[in-house]
Amino acid sequence: MGDDPTALRIDGQRLWKRLNDLGEVGAVLGPNGERGCARLALTNADRLGRDLVVTWMHDLGLQISIDAIGNVIATRPGSDPSLAPVMTGSHIDTVRTGGRFDGNLGVLAGLEVLETFEQHGISTERAVQVGFFTNEEGARFAPDMLGSLVYVGGLALEEALDALAMDDGARLGDELGAIGYAGPTPCPAASAPHAFVELHIEQGPVLEEHDITIGVVTGVQGISWTEYTITGRSAHAGTTPMRLRRDPVVAAASIVGEARRLASVMGNSQVTTVGRMELFPGLINVVAQRVTFTLDLRNTDERMLQQAEAHMADFISDACAAEGCTVEQRTLARFEPVSFDPTMIERVERIADDQGNSTLRMPSGAGHDAQMLARMCPTSMIFVPSVGGLSHNIAEFTAPHHIEAGANVLLHTLLEVARR
Amino acid sequence: MGDDPTALRIDGQRLWKRLNDLGEVGAVLGPNGERGCARLALTNADRLGRDLVVTWMHDLGLQISIDAIGNVIATRPGSDPSLAPVMTGSHIDTVRTGGRFDGNLGVLAGLEVLETFEQHGISTERAVQVGFFTNEEGARFAPDMLGSLVYVGGLALEEALDALAMDDGARLGDELGAIGYAGPTPCPAASAPHAFVELHIEQGPVLEEHDITIGVVTGVQGISWTEYTITGRSAHAGTTPMRLRRDPVVAAASIVGEARRLASVMGNSQVTTVGRMELFPGLINVVAQRVTFTLDLRNTDERMLQQAEAHMADFISDACAAEGCTVEQRTLARFEPVSFDPTMIERVERIADDQGNSTLRMPSGAGHDAQMLARMCPTSMIFVPSVGGLSHNIAEFTAPHHIEAGANVLLHTLLEVARR
Repeated sequence: MGDDPTALRIDGQRLWKRLNDLGEVGAVLGPNGERGCARLALTNADRLGRDLVVTWMHDLGLQISIDAIGNVIATRPGSDPSLAPVMTGSHIDTVRTGGRFDGNLGVLAGLEVLETFEQHGISTERAVQVGFFTNEEGARFAPDMLGSLVYVGGLALEEALDALAMDDGARLGDELGAIGYAGPTPCPAASAPHAFVELHIEQGPVLEEHDITIGVVTGVQGISWTEYTITGRSAHAGTTPMRLRRDPVVAAASIVGEARRLASVMGNSQVTTVGRMELFPGLINVVAQRVTFTLDLRNTDERMLQQAEAHMADFISDACAAEGCTVEQRTLARFEPVSFDPTMIERVERIADDQGNSTLRMPSGAGHDAQMLARMCPTSMIFVPSVGGLSHNIAEFTAPHHIEAGANVLLHTLLEVARR
Repeated sequence: MGDDPTALRIDGQRLWKRLNDLGEVGAVLGPNGERGCARLALTNADRLGRDLVVTWMHDLGLQISIDAIGNVIATRPGSDPSLAPVMTGSHIDTVRTGGRFDGNLGVLAGLEVLETFEQHGISTERAVQVGFFTNEEGARFAPDMLGSLVYVGGLALEEALDALAMDDGARLGDELGAIGYAGPTPCPAASAPHAFVELHIEQGPVLEEHDITIGVVTGVQGISWTEYTITGRSAHAGTTPMRLRRDPVVAAASIVGEARRLASVMGNSQVTTVGRMELFPGLINVVAQRVTFTLDLRNTDERMLQQAEAHMADFISDACAAEGCTVEQRTLARFEPVSFDPTMIERVERIADDQGNSTLRMPSGAGHDAQMLARMCPTSMIFVPSVGGLSHNIAEFTAPHHIEAGANVLLHTLLEVARR
């Protein structure tokens, strides 16, 4: 092994065990025995998950820093302290009905790589870092990828600390303090890593459909999140003639239909989702006064994404006017599509090929911390298949041999970049 | 006054004050200073409202009975105890964003009539009763008009006590006990009243549009309430291609649109409302797993109502199948249209005319306790105008002179029926 460093491999069972152990924190059981995870950012479950990962980092003898937005970065020093470190990592927060792999894999595979280095006495010239970033999912605070965005200087720390939770209105900074993760390290980062690479599950069906083991991620699609509040006039459901109604539910329903229609017209690269909708007062016999909903638009092409935004804005304005309703909107997140570093993309592809994996270049449909780090340093990502394409679902699953294959690509990518 | 009994009138200011005093219990303030009411059935606010009205009943020296479903009936004895009593009343529970008049007016006008009798030394041959019935709104427990329905024997007491709250899942019987209104009087009623008449605000725009003071109510439209739960498949909003989605929000949205379309096709007598809709998990970046919503259909014609039900059932089944979703349904309430007693209708109309009011015969768009009492005894209703047709809205308002006019029609209707 020491003689042929390309033969070095991670311990798949050890990584699988850590994935399951972390998955027990905030575990939720599905109707068919699926074991999912509910660790919304900065909740008590998130605290317990963080504590467990930090304990593992300590056990590996890593230097741990916690920054002002709660990002946790563990460092294994290199032989030349003058060189910038190489970084990997992801997130450990989940959506309310999340799985055990989304985010967690990238963090725990990073730890597994460092444990493998340690076990085999591998030293690298550059330090290697494994981090997890705060509130990647955006399921509790907007925007998503908040921690990595602040890390790279894309959002002011104070503004991020003032973000309010969508579920209970709590302030992010207060929640961060309450769980003990408002750290002393300044954020944004004082200096950039030499490179960043993130292993993640695909969260979509493409790799499985083509029977491919490793997705070589070329970039991330652009994301547009907007919250709309439509106000009509609450009225009695029995006595108010239809012609006198100003029903925000009817306006919102037509918008949901148009979002679906737009995606079919624009084709595969455009996806549209209305995943949250709240009616007020929300009673069976009352025409609603107000509806709040979110619209999630994504495209790999910035110009098409802008077209989708403009089309929906016009439609929403018209639909509300037609129903005699008013509408307010609030941008929750807006990220342009990101292209990863060509050299890093080629490196991931070559290493995956060399290890005998089938590979496919593909864009990411989901947002990832890597797209934020890409603003700061050469970056790429490694995808492994999601069974049935399912993610943000407690039935999310990736086969152990795929987990192992992805982590081995991560291992040698980090090794190659960190050696020199 | 004693010489000309037709000149007898209620005290409008005293009635107005009681309406305002009761309106302070569970008061909610609107953005433009409107004073509305939130006294959902069997909540603590409802208890406080009940206590206040019962205190007033005591102050008037009435005999008070509380029955097993929490209906409260106050009796002023007549000179001939062998005759069945004449009853008036309504309800004091409200929707979450309700007004001060819906229901409350019918109860407090009844008390005002009895206070006027007392003040002028009027005795009646028949006893006169003023009641308020439990959970008329159906905003917390289904079905609506639950208390009066049990009172007339239309729903088994035990079944009603087992109803679960839509907001917090509490059992009706437990909530009734908790607020101290599980009374000793058996329910259903041991015997029928001689007649029932209910004063209520119109809750619609018809009287105001035609500048009419008194609506002579000929009957109540039929009501069909169904709750639907559509289940799709939760998935990642960024990585799941549109063609693989099974999104219950899209199915529900098309159903909302179809319900609106159906009402325009069927015309004025058909109204349709989706007032409640909940998404699960309800996150911005997750295609929803499940949507629960209610569909409220009403028509004055039973056959047309059945047509509307059949059409929506077919459409819902098709829409869910097209989206690859499954659907479950649950009937929350189903009442056929009701026709009131012709003699009672004519009596209300004649008395209103004699007092110099403009009158209009009209059906009721809303359900009322009177439609339940109509199963038991000759019944009618008196409507007074709602400003802007608004109800189930904190801006609900009826002018004091209309309140007074309606209460005076109630006074003489009760007097005429109770004298002999």
